[in-house]
Amino acid sequence: MDIEKLSELLQGVGNGNIAVGDALERLRTLPIDSVGDFAQLDTHRALRNGIPEVVFSPGKSNDQMSAIVSRLAENSGRVMATRATMDQFESVRKRVPHARYHELSRLITVGDEMQPIDPDKSVAVLTAGTADTSVGEEAALTLEWHGIRAERLYDVGVAGLHRLLSRLDLLQKADVIIVCAGMEGALASVVGGLVSCPVVAVPTSIGYGASFEGLAALLSMLNACAGGIAVVNIDNGFGAAIYAQRILSIGNKVLA
Amino acid sequence: MDIEKLSELLQGVGNGNIAVGDALERLRTLPIDSVGDFAQLDTHRALRNGIPEVVFSPGKSNDQMSAIVSRLAENSGRVMATRATMDQFESVRKRVPHARYHELSRLITVGDEMQPIDPDKSVAVLTAGTADTSVGEEAALTLEWHGIRAERLYDVGVAGLHRLLSRLDLLQKADVIIVCAGMEGALASVVGGLVSCPVVAVPTSIGYGASFEGLAALLSMLNACAGGIAVVNIDNGFGAAIYAQRILSIGNKVLA
Amino acid sequence: MDIEKLSELLQGVGNGNIAVGDALERLRTLPIDSVGDFAQLDTHRALRNGIPEVVFSPGKSNDQMSAIVSRLAENSGRVMATRATMDQFESVRKRVPHARYHELSRLITVGDEMQPIDPDKSVAVLTAGTADTSVGEEAALTLEWHGIRAERLYDVGVAGLHRLLSRLDLLQKADVIIVCAGMEGALASVVGGLVSCPVVAVPTSIGYGASFEGLAALLSMLNACAGGIAVVNIDNGFGAAIYAQRILSIGNKVLA
Amino acid sequence: MDIEKLSELLQGVGNGNIAVGDALERLRTLPIDSVGDFAQLDTHRALRNGIPEVVFSPGKSNDQMSAIVSRLAENSGRVMATRATMDQFESVRKRVPHARYHELSRLITVGDEMQPIDPDKSVAVLTAGTADTSVGEEAALTLEWHGIRAERLYDVGVAGLHRLLSRLDLLQKADVIIVCAGMEGALASVVGGLVSCPVVAVPTSIGYGASFEGLAALLSMLNACAGGIAVVNIDNGFGAAIYAQRILSIGNKVLA
Amino acid sequence: MDIEKLSELLQGVGNGNIAVGDALERLRTLPIDSVGDFAQLDTHRALRNGIPEVVFSPGKSNDQMSAIVSRLAENSGRVMATRATMDQFESVRKRVPHARYHELSRLITVGDEMQPIDPDKSVAVLTAGTADTSVGEEAALTLEWHGIRAERLYDVGVAGLHRLLSRLDLLQKADVIIVCAGMEGALASVVGGLVSCPVVAVPTSIGYGASFEGLAALLSMLNACAGGIAVVNIDNGFGAAIYAQRILSIGNKVLA
Amino acid sequence: MDIEKLSELLQGVGNGNIAVGDALERLRTLPIDSVGDFAQLDTHRALRNGIPEVVFSPGKSNDQMSAIVSRLAENSGRVMATRATMDQFESVRKRVPHARYHELSRLITVGDEMQPIDPDKSVAVLTAGTADTSVGEEAALTLEWHGIRAERLYDVGVAGLHRLLSRLDLLQKADVIIVCAGMEGALASVVGGLVSCPVVAVPTSIGYGASFEGLAALLSMLNACAGGIAVVNIDNGFGAAIYAQRILSIGNKVLA
Amino acid sequence: MDIEKLSELLQGVGNGNIAVGDALERLRTLPIDSVGDFAQLDTHRALRNGIPEVVFSPGKSNDQMSAIVSRLAENSGRVMATRATMDQFESVRKRVPHARYHELSRLITVGDEMQPIDPDKSVAVLTAGTADTSVGEEAALTLEWHGIRAERLYDVGVAGLHRLLSRLDLLQKADVIIVCAGMEGALASVVGGLVSCPVVAVPTSIGYGASFEGLAALLSMLNACAGGIAVVNIDNGFGAAIYAQRILSIGNKVLA
Amino acid sequence: MDIEKLSELLQGVGNGNIAVGDALERLRTLPIDSVGDFAQLDTHRALRNGIPEVVFSPGKSNDQMSAIVSRLAENSGRVMATRATMDQFESVRKRVPHARYHELSRLITVGDEMQPIDPDKSVAVLTAGTADTSVGEEAALTLEWHGIRAERLYDVGVAGLHRLLSRLDLLQKADVIIVCAGMEGALASVVGGLVSCPVVAVPTSIGYGASFEGLAALLSMLNACAGGIAVVNIDNGFGAAIYAQRILSIGNKVLA
Repeated sequence: MDIEKLSELLQGVGNGNIAVGDALERLRTLPIDSVGDFAQLDTHRALRNGIPEVVFSPGKSNDQMSAIVSRLAENSGRVMATRATMDQFESVRKRVPHARYHELSRLITVGDEMQPIDPDKSVAVLTAGTADTSVGEEAALTLEWHGIRAERLYDVGVAGLHRLLSRLDLLQKADVIIVCAGMEGALASVVGGLVSCPVVAVPTSIGYGASFEGLAALLSMLNACAGGIAVVNIDNGFGAAIYAQRILSIGNKVLA
Repeated sequence: MDIEKLSELLQGVGNGNIAVGDALERLRTLPIDSVGDFAQLDTHRALRNGIPEVVFSPGKSNDQMSAIVSRLAENSGRVMATRATMDQFESVRKRVPHARYHELSRLITVGDEMQPIDPDKSVAVLTAGTADTSVGEEAALTLEWHGIRAERLYDVGVAGLHRLLSRLDLLQKADVIIVCAGMEGALASVVGGLVSCPVVAVPTSIGYGASFEGLAALLSMLNACAGGIAVVNIDNGFGAAIYAQRILSIGNKVLA
Repeated sequence: MDIEKLSELLQGVGNGNIAVGDALERLRTLPIDSVGDFAQLDTHRALRNGIPEVVFSPGKSNDQMSAIVSRLAENSGRVMATRATMDQFESVRKRVPHARYHELSRLITVGDEMQPIDPDKSVAVLTAGTADTSVGEEAALTLEWHGIRAERLYDVGVAGLHRLLSRLDLLQKADVIIVCAGMEGALASVVGGLVSCPVVAVPTSIGYGASFEGLAALLSMLNACAGGIAVVNIDNGFGAAIYAQRILSIGNKVLA
Repeated sequence: MDIEKLSELLQGVGNGNIAVGDALERLRTLPIDSVGDFAQLDTHRALRNGIPEVVFSPGKSNDQMSAIVSRLAENSGRVMATRATMDQFESVRKRVPHARYHELSRLITVGDEMQPIDPDKSVAVLTAGTADTSVGEEAALTLEWHGIRAERLYDVGVAGLHRLLSRLDLLQKADVIIVCAGMEGALASVVGGLVSCPVVAVPTSIGYGASFEGLAALLSMLNACAGGIAVVNIDNGFGAAIYAQRILSIGNKVLA
Repeated sequence: MDIEKLSELLQGVGNGNIAVGDALERLRTLPIDSVGDFAQLDTHRALRNGIPEVVFSPGKSNDQMSAIVSRLAENSGRVMATRATMDQFESVRKRVPHARYHELSRLITVGDEMQPIDPDKSVAVLTAGTADTSVGEEAALTLEWHGIRAERLYDVGVAGLHRLLSRLDLLQKADVIIVCAGMEGALASVVGGLVSCPVVAVPTSIGYGASFEGLAALLSMLNACAGGIAVVNIDNGFGAAIYAQRILSIGNKVLA
Repeated sequence: MDIEKLSELLQGVGNGNIAVGDALERLRTLPIDSVGDFAQLDTHRALRNGIPEVVFSPGKSNDQMSAIVSRLAENSGRVMATRATMDQFESVRKRVPHARYHELSRLITVGDEMQPIDPDKSVAVLTAGTADTSVGEEAALTLEWHGIRAERLYDVGVAGLHRLLSRLDLLQKADVIIVCAGMEGALASVVGGLVSCPVVAVPTSIGYGASFEGLAALLSMLNACAGGIAVVNIDNGFGAAIYAQRILSIGNKVLA
Repeated sequence: MDIEKLSELLQGVGNGNIAVGDALERLRTLPIDSVGDFAQLDTHRALRNGIPEVVFSPGKSNDQMSAIVSRLAENSGRVMATRATMDQFESVRKRVPHARYHELSRLITVGDEMQPIDPDKSVAVLTAGTADTSVGEEAALTLEWHGIRAERLYDVGVAGLHRLLSRLDLLQKADVIIVCAGMEGALASVVGGLVSCPVVAVPTSIGYGASFEGLAALLSMLNACAGGIAVVNIDNGFGAAIYAQRILSIGNKVLA
Repeated sequence: MDIEKLSELLQGVGNGNIAVGDALERLRTLPIDSVGDFAQLDTHRALRNGIPEVVFSPGKSNDQMSAIVSRLAENSGRVMATRATMDQFESVRKRVPHARYHELSRLITVGDEMQPIDPDKSVAVLTAGTADTSVGEEAALTLEWHGIRAERLYDVGVAGLHRLLSRLDLLQKADVIIVCAGMEGALASVVGGLVSCPVVAVPTSIGYGASFEGLAALLSMLNACAGGIAVVNIDNGFGAAIYAQRILSIGNKVLA
C-alpha cells in the first residue's frame, strides 16, 4: 500500500466517507501480509522506506512467484520482481495477465513506469562494455519504474578513454552516476575523479579467469583512489537504482 | 584553490582591480602543483569536485608530509591529512605550527571546522561498538570540517537492539546515515530496513579470527538484504564522509 | 593403560610363557586395544542416542542408495536420507515402496514422524527469506521425524524488522532456535540478542555475487556480536536439527 | 501490529482529533513502536539470563577500560573482561583494586567464581595440544565464573589417540563438551563420534603455514563428518562457554 | 593546462566579454578539454597500431554479435572475435558468409591471415600439455592474423624436460616466447631461465582440485624465480599475442 | 618402451641378432614420439621413472584420445588413461577394441593388471565414506595395474571410530597407506597417529558448503598434527598410487 | 622410551634379572606421562611409530618448554624440539645443560646425531634458493638426528637449470628427495620428472607479494604435472624428514 | 636425442665393447645429457644477456650478504642487490666500501650506472601516487644501472586524470611503459588504452582494507580491459625493469 492510497483512505475517514471499521479492514494486513506458509509480505515498507516491496525471484518456485506477485498486485497495483526466469514469468502471467517481462534485465513489472517525479533530476547509467548492458538495464528500468529519469551511456570503458571524455558534459550534469563495469572495473575510479556528484559503483561478473566472477571489479571499486564512490553487490543493478532513488528523495520525505 | 577564492580573482579581473598577467601568475600552478619530484598536487580538484585535495599519509616520509601539507596550507589555508602517525604530525607541525592532530581519528587538520553550510541537514554517524569509535570519528570530523552537521550515535550494535530502536526518531530524521561496524556488520542491514535515506556502510577491521581483518563485515554489508545500502572500503570513515558530502551537495553545484 | 593386563604380560615373560619378541609386539597396540571393544561401544551409542544412522546421498549411485536404504529399513523400520535427488528416490522406491520423498527439503524418509517425546519442548525454525525455505524444511522435518516439536517462523529477515519483533513471544518461548539465513545472515545476530536460549545458525547459499555461495553468511554468523550463537555448515539444516536434538536430550540420557 | 492502537488512531482521524498528516506520520513507525518498550525488555533479559554484560577489551583505550569496568563493578559487583592486555589490567586495577588478571586466558574478573549452580552438570573442556591451553582456560574460567563445573582434559589430540580414549568415561559423562583445537582440528570430529551430547567446537589459531591463522581448523570443524558439532569463531573460548551456559539453562529459565 | 587558452579566457573576463560565472564554469573542465580532441586521438591510434577493434564475444546475444561483426566487416574488411560459441558463429555467418570459425581456439575471423610483416621475427608459442592447445591456438592464430610468424611448440611441459631441452635452439631463436601452461605452470619459470627474450606467460585453467581454475598456475607464474616473465589473465591467449605484437612493433611505429 | 623390451633389444644387438641400423630405427622415436601436432609422447619415461606415460584425459578431444591411446598401445601394449569420460572411451574403443573402461574410477586401461611384483608388500587404500569410493578405486586399480597388491578398507571414517580401530591389525601390516577423505579429512590425522608407515593423503571433493570443493580436507591434511603424512592434489587417487609405487620401488631400481 | 631400552627391560624380566614389580614401576607411565596440568607426553609413540615424541615449541611458555624437555630427556635421553626461540632454549638449558640449539633451523636437540642406520641409503635435501636454507637445514638435521644420511644440494632452483642438471647423478642415486622451494616452487615439478624415487615437496614462505606466505608454492606443488610428488605443510622441513624416515623404515619394522 | 651418440653406443654393444647393463644405464639419462654442457650454456647466457646475477636479499643473513656481494664484486665489478635492509648494507659496506645504498628503493649497487646503450630508447616509469615512489624508484634505478634511459612520471593516478593527460606526449614517445599502482590499480588500464607500446604493470601493496596487500591491484591489472598489458608480482619494480630490458634487447642480441 503506497502513501498516496493511504492518504486518501485517511482523508475518507476524516471526512466521514469511509467508516472506521471499513478502514480497519482495509488496513488489516498492514504491515505484514502472509502468503501461504512461506512469505511475509512487508506491506509496511512503502510507508517506511518509500519503496514498495520488490520480489527477489531466485530460489522461489513458480507457484510461490505467482502467488506473491498476484497478492502484491492486488494490494497496490504495482509490482517489480528481479532476476526472474522466463519460466517464473510464464507462471506469473497466468495469474497476472498484464505483467511484463524485460528479457535483458530479467525484470518482471506490473504497472507502468511512472512519469518522472522531478524532471530536472537525472541519474546517468554507465556501462564499461556491451556485455554489461544487462546489469545497466536492470538499473535504468528500475529507476524509470520508480519515476526517475535515467540517462544511458553504454560501452564507455576506459580502454578507449575518448568515448567517455567526449560525453563529459553529460556526466557533469547528472545528479547521481551509476557505473556498471566488470573485468577490472576501472571506469568507476576514472568517473569518480571527473565529477562532483555521488557515484554508485556496480561490479559486474563479466570477465574470465582472474576476474573470479566479479571479485576483481569489486575489490577494484572498493579501493578506488578517487573519492565519492560507494559500492553495491556484484551485478546488483537494482540495488544501485534504489540507492540513487534514496539519494534523490532527500528533502522530499513526504512525497517520496 | 577553492571556488570562492577563484571567484574573487575573476571578479577582480572583471572590474579591473587585478591585471590579467597577475591573475595568470596566480593561476600558474593550476591545476597541478609539483612538490619536489614526488607529488603532483591536484589543485584543480576543488573546482572539479568541490573538495580540496586531502593527503593520504601512509607510505609518505615525514619530509614528504611536511612539504606537501605546508604547500597546500599556503595555497588554500585549509588542509586535511588522513591516517597520519604522531611522527608525521610532529614533522608537519614544525612547518605548519597551527596544524592540529586528532588522536582518535588520526587526522591532521589545518584550518577550523566550517560552520554548517545547511543547518537543516545532518548526517548520522553510527557505530556498532566502542571499538569502532576511531572510524566513526574519522567520518564525523571529516563531515564537520567540510561544513556538515554530524549526529553521533555510538555503540548501538544489534546485540542489544533496544539501544538502536530507542533512537529511531533520530535515525529517521537524518538525511544520510553512516554505519561503522566490524565483526559481522549486521547493523547496516538493520538500519537499512528502518529508514528511507541512503546508508553508507563502513566495515571496520574490529573483530578477530574469522573476521579476517574486516572481510566478514565487508561481505555482510555488500550482501545486505535490506535496500538502500552502499559500501566503502574497510575502515574508510573518511571516504564515507566525502560520499555523504557529495550526496548533500546535489542541487547546490555552484556553492559546493 | 590397563595395569592388570600389563602385569600379566610381564609375568608371562618372567615365567617364560611369553617370548620377548611377542611381548614387544603386544606392547605396540596395547594402549588402544585396552580401551575396550569398540564395536560394542557403537551399538551402545545407537541405543543411547535414539538416532539411527542417516544416509548422506550425494556421490552415491542409484543402486548404492536403494541397497543401503532397503537394508536399513529392514533393520530398524525407520530411515532418513538427506540431499537425495528425485532419481535416487525413484530407485529407492522400487525396493522400499512406502518410502516418501519431501521435494522441498530433498529428504527421503521411511517410517512416520514420531509423536513429540516431550510436548513441552520446542525448537523454533526461522528463515530470513522465502528462498531459505528448503533449508528450513530440512531442519523442521528432521526434528519432527526425531520426535521434537518444530515451530516454523519463515520469511522474518531483518529488512523488515517488525516481522520478527511481532513474533517475539514465540521466540522467547522456544528452547532452541535454528536460524537459516543467506545473503548477509544478520538474522542470527539479531535473534541472538533477543533471546536467552541457544541459537544454532545455518548459513544458506542463497544470494549472489559477493555472497560467494554462502561464505558471506557463514563469516557473518561466526562473527556475530551477540552471544549464544554457534554455527553449522552452509545449507546444513539437517545438522542443525541433530544438534538441537542433542541439546534437548541432556538430562534424558536414559530415554533419549 | 496492535489493532487496538490502530483503531484508536482511525477514530481520532474520524472525529477530527487527529490530522491526516499526523496520522500518516504516526503510521510510519507504528509497527515497530507497538512491539513494546525495548529498554525494559533488555533489563528483563539481564534478570532472566543471569549473565551480566561482559567487556570485549580489544580496541579500547586504558582509560575506557578502567571507566567501563569500574562502572560495571559498582552496579553489580561482578565483571568479566575478555582478551585484556596486562596494560589494560594495570589501568583497571587502579580504580578496582580487587580486580584479578588471569594471564593465560587474558581475562580480567571482578568478583569470585560462583558455586556450581547445579553440581550434577558439567562441561568438559578439551584441548588438542599444550599450545591450545590459553583458549581452553578462557572457556573453563568463564564457565566457573558463571557457576558451571568445568572438567579440563588438556593435550588429548588425535595424534596419540589413546590419550583421548583412556578418558572415554569422562567424555561420556559430560553434558556439553567444548573442543579447542588448532592445526587440522580433527579432535572435534573424533569426539563428536564418541559421545551423544552437544559438542561446541572452537578452532584455534595454533599452527603455521597452511593453517592460515585458524582457517584450516575452522573449515575442518564446519565440515565434521560426525553429527552433533557446532562451531564458534576462531579462538573464541569465551563464546563457547556462554553457549554451553545457554544450553544448560534450558528448562531452568526462572533460575538461570 | 594550456596557458594560451587560459590567457584568452582571463582577457575575456577583463574586457567584459565573458561573465565571471561563465568563466568559472569553463575552468571546471578546462584541464581535460585542453588535452585535445580524443575522438581524433583514437582514430590516430587505430592507424598507428594496425590493430582493428576485436570483439569480446561472451555476454553478447547472437543478434548483437552478428550486428557488430557485420558492421566491422563492412568498415574494414577484417574482423576478429574471441571466445565465440558455435551458436554465435552461426548467427554471424548468416550476415557475413565468408566468416570462419576456428573451433579449437573459438575465434571467428573475417579476412585472411596477413603475410608476415617482418619474416625475420617470430614468436614461439609453447604449451605444457595437449589440453592447453586451445589457448595456444588462440595465441598463434591471433599472431598470424596480425602478420606475425608463430612457431608452435606444443606439449613440452617440464614433467619430461628433454622434450623442451631438445628444442632449445628454437627457443633461443625466438624474439618473444608465449608460454601457455595450466596445473602448476612451471614451464614459464624454466623457459624464463633458458632464454634472454621476454616471456609472456599465460596461465590456463587446465587442472583440477587445488588448481582452482587456473589460480595455481597464475600465482606460480607471478612468483617465477626466473626473470623476464610477465603474466596475462588466465586462458588469455589472445592478450598474450597482442602483447607480443606490441613488443615487436617497437621501433616500427610508422609502419606498425 | 619399457625396460624389458629395451633390454631384449640391446641383447639382440649384443649377440648380433639385431643389426645396429635396425636397432637405431626402433629407437628412432625414443625418447619423444609425436602424435599429430598436438602431443609429444614421452616414451623415455618408462626408462627414467619406471612408469610408462599415463594419459590425462580432460581437455582432449575424442580424436586426440583415440590417436594417443592407440599409439601408446602399439608401442608398449599397455596404456592407462585417467579421468576419461564414457564418450572418450567409446572413441578409443573403435581403434583399440580390447581397451576397458572402469566406470567408477573413470580409468581406461589397455592390457591386464600385472601379477604382484612383490606379494609380501601391500598398500592399504582407505576411504572415509561411501562417496569417496570413486577416488579410492582410482588409487586401488592404478596400484594393481602396476603390479602392487591393494588392500581396500572403505567407509571407515572417524565418525564411527570403531570401524577403523577394529581393523587396526590390517593398518599396521600395510607398507604404505593411502587415505581418501572429503569433508574435514580427519581420517588422515587419526591414521597417521596409529601407524609407523608413510601415509599418502588424498583430499576428496566430497562435501558441500564450506568444504569448498575439497579445500577443507586439503588444508586439514596439510596441517595434520600427526607425523608421517604427505598430501597430493584433491581427488588425485592416481597420483597417490604412483607415489606409493615409487616408495615401494626403492632399492629395486633395476627392476622397477 | 625407545624400543631398544624396552627390549632390554623385557629380557631382564625374562632372564630373572629384573623383578616383575620393578619392571611394572618402570613402565608405569607408559603410554602417557603427564607434566603439570598442561601436557600429556605420548611416551608410547616410539613403540607405535618408531619415533620418540618431538616437541612443537610455538605457543609454549619458557617454563612449559623446560619442564617438557627435561622430562623427556630423563625418560629416553634423546629429545628434539622444533621451531624453538632462543629464549625457549635459554630456559631449557638451565634444566638440561647439554641441550644444543641449532640457530639456522631453530631446533633444540638433546643427545647426539645417530650413526646412519643404513649407510647405503640417503635422502637428498634440495633447496631452490639460499633463503630456503633454514627449512632445508630443519629437514637435514632431523634426518641425521634420526640416523639417516642427508645429502645437501642447496640453491639449485630452476632459474639456472644447469645447476640442477649438473648434479643429475646425485639426484638419481638418492632414495628419497626432499625439495624445499618458495616463490613458485617449480623445482619440485622438474625434479619429479627427472627421477624415479619419491619426492617430498616442502613449500617455503620465501617470496613476496602474490606468494602469499607460501601459498603460491603450495598450490604449485600440489598441482605438479610430474608424478611422484607429495606435499607437506609450508616450511615444514621437520615433517618432510619424518616422512622420509617412515619411507626408509619400510621392511625394517622391528628395527625402526 | 643425439643420433650420433646413440649410434656409437649401439655399435659398442654390437661389438661387445659395452655391456648391455652399462648401455641400459647410459640410456637412462641420455636425452638430458645430450643437450649439452649447461654450465657452459649459462656462462653463455651471461655474455649474451648483459645482466650479471642480481642478489635477492630477504632471508639472507648479514654474513651471507657481504660474502655474496663481495664475491660478485670481485668477479665483475658490478653488483646489484634488491630489497636490502640498512643492516644488510652496513655489513656489505665493511667488505665492499664503495657499495652504495639507495634508501627509497632499498637497492644496493656496486659500480656506476651505465651510459644509455641506445639513447633513442626510453622506458617511462609511472606511479599512481606518492606512496608508490619506492617501487617506481626500484624500477627506474634498475633500468639506469643496466644502461637504459628511464623517464619518471610520478603521482599521475586516475583520480586527477588531467595530471596524466597533460603528459600524453611523453607517454606516447616511450618505447615501454612501466606502471606502478596500488589501491585499485586503474592507471594500468587507462595507460594501456592511450598508447601502442607494451605496458608492464606492477601492482603495489599500497592501500588498506580490501586492497589485501596488493591483491586488488593485481587482479585489476590482470583483468585490464585495455590490451597490451602484462603483469609482474606485487611490488616487483625490479622485475618490471628487467622485463623492459629484455624487450629493448630484441634485435640487439649480439650487443645487449
